[in-house]
Amino acid sequence: MILAFDLYGTLFSTQIPGVPREVMDSWRRKQLEYTWRSTLMGEWRDFDEITRMSLRYVREKFNLQMGDEVLEEWRRLKPFPDVEALQNLEAELWVLTNGVERTVNQILRDAGLIHLFKGVFSAERVREYKPSTKLYKTFQGEVGEGILISSNPFDVAGAKRSGMKAVFVRRGEFTLADFMGLEPDSTVDSLWEIQRKLIG
Amino acid sequence: MILAFDLYGTLFSTQIPGVPREVMDSWRRKQLEYTWRSTLMGEWRDFDEITRMSLRYVREKFNLQMGDEVLEEWRRLKPFPDVEALQNLEAELWVLTNGVERTVNQILRDAGLIHLFKGVFSAERVREYKPSTKLYKTFQGEVGEGILISSNPFDVAGAKRSGMKAVFVRRGEFTLADFMGLEPDSTVDSLWEIQRKLIG
Repeated sequence: MILAFDLYGTLFSTQIPGVPREVMDSWRRKQLEYTWRSTLMGEWRDFDEITRMSLRYVREKFNLQMGDEVLEEWRRLKPFPDVEALQNLEAELWVLTNGVERTVNQILRDAGLIHLFKGVFSAERVREYKPSTKLYKTFQGEVGEGILISSNPFDVAGAKRSGMKAVFVRRGEFTLADFMGLEPDSTVDSLWEIQRKLIG
Repeated sequence: MILAFDLYGTLFSTQIPGVPREVMDSWRRKQLEYTWRSTLMGEWRDFDEITRMSLRYVREKFNLQMGDEVLEEWRRLKPFPDVEALQNLEAELWVLTNGVERTVNQILRDAGLIHLFKGVFSAERVREYKPSTKLYKTFQGEVGEGILISSNPFDVAGAKRSGMKAVFVRRGEFTLADFMGLEPDSTVDSLWEIQRKLIG
């Protein structure tokens, strides 16, 4: 069994200590907007660049003095505590991410998690971001049929639309409407439930 | 000279009387998100459906009792006062919009503006939303070389990326970063400046 985990928001928290929630939400939302716009315009910018561009946006919007050290913090995100559950999963684990492969490998190394994964499959490989069906289909073509595990409704919907199974990890507020009619095969409240739900 | 005007936010205000600003901003943002996600997933939903889906999202998010009558209000948006400036423009005017052609024609008729335009060119025709380059390129292929006039930075960037000229109408807050490096050929504070800037 192949399990493909989303990274940002699913394995790792996208909150940075000291950055106000409102600023962080705006930054994250703009980051996603830029991935979508960049894909639609056929103008590839890697996720590190998208992250810098969206930081520039929030700086201008909120008139912040926040320096580039916050980008360093973004590269030192912390895993959610339930990531521990992955240690005992009897499956082939992958990371399926918008992130830059090198950057994500470094984040996984720093968190002592890299040995858990067979590999990182990045949007870089197809130069289109989630939820482009090209990404999920290429993953399945190259790695094999898998199940996406994500806390992002747009990610779940994209996988479903691409013929991939998907588990939604309920990490915080969400609305059912946000799946756009492409709902997950199952929903869990924590990664601890994965073993029981999927592997039994 | 062909001038292609964006509708929502450029010719018409997307504020609805009685709907709190926070709710309206969230609705509008989600509406755009759904246009992008739908295009990336290759799952076409017309703009009226996208509008309903995003309304459902804000209802669930803010736990609102707001009924479907607000969708009627959305179909009765009001033009900005400076739309009067279009009366005397010596150019061929088009509407280039994400909106459903039928719906947009009705909005223009209701506002007494339909006679100003040679036609409405909708994202429906290519089944991809702004800023997909396919939309701007198809417009130019079928109608001719034109200049986009829009208050939406993602729209300006999409046009520029597609080899179309673009004028940015500064309607409210914006940040330079939001053009993603694809900046307009010129910027105006009101549609009254179009005649002077473009036609002289």
